[in-house]
Amino acid sequence: MTNETTRREALIGIGAVAGLAALPQAACAQPGRKLGYAIVGLGSYATNQIMPSFARCQHSRIAALVSGTSEKLARYGAEYDVPEKNRYSYATFDRIADNPDVDIVYVILPVSMHAEYSIRASKAGKHVMCEKPMAPTARECEAMVAAAAGAGKKLMIGYRSRFQPHNVAAIELCRTKAIGDLKMIRTAHGFPIQPNQWRLDHKMSGGGSMMDIGIYSLQAARYLAGEEPVEVTAVESTDRRDPRFATVEDRIDFTLRFPSGLLASCISSYSSSHNEYRAIGSDGWIELEPATAYRGQAMRVRRNGATSTPNIDTSGPDQFVGQLDHLAQCIRDNRTPIVPGEEGLRDIRIIEAIYRSMREKRAISLT
Amino acid sequence: MTNETTRREALIGIGAVAGLAALPQAACAQPGRKLGYAIVGLGSYATNQIMPSFARCQHSRIAALVSGTSEKLARYGAEYDVPEKNRYSYATFDRIADNPDVDIVYVILPVSMHAEYSIRASKAGKHVMCEKPMAPTARECEAMVAAAAGAGKKLMIGYRSRFQPHNVAAIELCRTKAIGDLKMIRTAHGFPIQPNQWRLDHKMSGGGSMMDIGIYSLQAARYLAGEEPVEVTAVESTDRRDPRFATVEDRIDFTLRFPSGLLASCISSYSSSHNEYRAIGSDGWIELEPATAYRGQAMRVRRNGATSTPNIDTSGPDQFVGQLDHLAQCIRDNRTPIVPGEEGLRDIRIIEAIYRSMREKRAISLT
Repeated sequence: MTNETTRREALIGIGAVAGLAALPQAACAQPGRKLGYAIVGLGSYATNQIMPSFARCQHSRIAALVSGTSEKLARYGAEYDVPEKNRYSYATFDRIADNPDVDIVYVILPVSMHAEYSIRASKAGKHVMCEKPMAPTARECEAMVAAAAGAGKKLMIGYRSRFQPHNVAAIELCRTKAIGDLKMIRTAHGFPIQPNQWRLDHKMSGGGSMMDIGIYSLQAARYLAGEEPVEVTAVESTDRRDPRFATVEDRIDFTLRFPSGLLASCISSYSSSHNEYRAIGSDGWIELEPATAYRGQAMRVRRNGATSTPNIDTSGPDQFVGQLDHLAQCIRDNRTPIVPGEEGLRDIRIIEAIYRSMREKRAISLT
Repeated sequence: MTNETTRREALIGIGAVAGLAALPQAACAQPGRKLGYAIVGLGSYATNQIMPSFARCQHSRIAALVSGTSEKLARYGAEYDVPEKNRYSYATFDRIADNPDVDIVYVILPVSMHAEYSIRASKAGKHVMCEKPMAPTARECEAMVAAAAGAGKKLMIGYRSRFQPHNVAAIELCRTKAIGDLKMIRTAHGFPIQPNQWRLDHKMSGGGSMMDIGIYSLQAARYLAGEEPVEVTAVESTDRRDPRFATVEDRIDFTLRFPSGLLASCISSYSSSHNEYRAIGSDGWIELEPATAYRGQAMRVRRNGATSTPNIDTSGPDQFVGQLDHLAQCIRDNRTPIVPGEEGLRDIRIIEAIYRSMREKRAISLT
C-alpha cells in the first residue's frame, strides 16, 4: 500500500477535515478572544443558518447586527445578546468603523447590494465575508477586491461547501487520483423556486437559477477538477410565460472544458430538484447526493467494480462553523482564505461567459 | 386514486411489459411456425448475446448463418443446428433470396456494412433487422428505408432497450406524469474502449463513442422525452495523441432541447464508465443505473421527498427475446415495428448534427 493510498483510505475512514492543510483544525486553535462578526442583513439564511452556527464556533462570535427593520434588530439583538450600541441601520452602517467589537462584516444581502456593502465595510477598515454569488458583474467583483486590498483587509466569499467534510473528502480523493485520471464531472443543482421574492427580480439578483443555485454546480466542477476551465458552452430553457421567469432564467445546461481534456456537464434549474455531483475517472467514480445541501451529505464511491458508501467523519466542525472560523483564523495568522474575493470573481467571470454563450448559442473561450 | 395512478402503480408493482400496447405479449401469442432469422456476422454480440436468446423465443428461430469465416459457420452451424445449405458466405449471400427458411435477415456487421447488407437483404425479398447505429450517414439510412419499402418488407433497428422491462416502465412513468412535467433528462453512457478493433477505425464505424455507446444516451433522451429535439449543442474532448483516437472521437457532452422546453444533458465516452439516466420532473425523478446494460437494470424513483426502488417484474421476455419476437409478430400481424428504419434514421440525423455542432462550436437547429 503506497503512502498516497494510506492517506486516502485514512481520509475516508477517519475523517476528512484534516485533508486540506488550509482548513481550520481544532488542534491548532489559538487562545485569545473570538473575532466579532457584524451580520449585515437579517433574512432567512442569516437568521436560520449562519447566526445559530456561532454557538458552535471557537474563534468567532456575533458582535453586531445591521438591518433596515428595527423590529428585527430588537428581536435578534436580544436573542444573541448584541448590545444596543452594536445594532445598526443601513443609514448608520458606516459608523461601524469606530466599533472595535467588529472585526469582520458578513454581507448577507440581495446580490445587487453585495458590492456596495462590501466596499463600505472595507473602507470602514473591516475584514469582509460576502455571500455568494459575489456580485452581479465581474466589474463589481474587481472593485470589491480592490477595496479590500486598498484597506489592507481580507475579503472572503461564503463558499461553505469547501468546509463540508464530504466535499473536502471528495476533493482529496480527486487530487490523489483515487479514481484515476478525471475524465468527466457531472453535477446538477436546482429546486422549484417559489414566486414573489427578490431572487426573481433581475435588478436585485443579477440573474436567475445560475446566480443562486447553479453556482454550486460551477464551484463543484472547479473544485473537483482542480484546474480552471478554458471554454464554456451553455444552453438555456426558460418559459417566459411563467411569471416567475419574467426577468431571470430558469434552466441552464452548461459544459466546461478544462485544459486536461476533462469535461464538466453542469445543470442549474429553478424548476426541478437536483443536488448532486459525480466525478468520473478512468478507474471509477465518486458521487455526493446530496452534495451541497445544508446537511445530510452522502457519498458513494465506485472502484474495482464495487460501489461503497464511505463513512465520513462529521464529528468535527460543520461547514458553517468551518467557514466562519476559517476567516477568523486567517485574520489572526495573516493567511489568505482558501476562497478569497478572487475566487468569487472567477465564478462571476465564468457566469458572464455562460450567459453570453446561451445568448449567442456558441462556445465562449475563457482564455 | 385516479385510473392513471392505479395504472402507474400497477405497472411498477406487477411488471412493465404490458405497459406499451405495441410490445410483444405472451398472452396474444399466435400459433404457427417460428419465423426464421439469418444471422449476418458472427462476432461477439451475435454469438454471445443474440444467438443464445433464440432458445427463449416463442416466435423466432435461427434459420441461417452468414459469415466470411468457414470455421465459424461450421462451429455455430453445428451448435445451432443450422443445416449446411443454410450457411452462407458473403459471396453467396444473395442466394438467400431463394431460401424459404429465411424470413428475416439480422445484420450484425461493422457499421459501414449495414447499408449494403440491409439493402441486399431487402432486394432478396427478406425482412430486415439491422443493428444500431443504423449506418454512418443519414443518406445511407434513407436508402435502407427506401429499399425495404420498395420490397414491401419490414425494416427494424435493434434498439433492444425498448423491450427491456425497466426501460419500458420508465417510459410509461414519464408518459403518465408520475414525476410531473419533465424538466430535465440526464444520461451518460460510456466505457474505456480497448485498442485495436474495428470500432476505432472511422472507415468501418462511421464515428467513435457517439456511434457506439453515446447512441444509448441519445435514444434514452428521446424515448423518455416522448418528443423530438429541435436543437442540439455538443462539446467534444478527444486526446488525439492516444492511438485509440486517431480517427474517432472519445468524449462528447451534448444537450438536446425539446419543444416543451425540456433539456436533455447527455454524455458519450470511450474513456470512462457510465450507464445511467435520470428523468427529472416537477415532482421528482426516475433513475436507472445500469440503464441499458445487457442485464442488471435497477430503478430508483423519487417522489414526495422519498426515494424508493420499485420492483420491476422481469419474469417475462427479456430485452433480446422481446426485440427478436417483436419483429416476428409485426411481420405476422403486418404491423410497423416500434423501432422501424425511420427511427434509426432519426438518430443518425441527430448524430450528424452533434458532429457538426462540436466541429463548429455552435448550436445546430434540427427543425
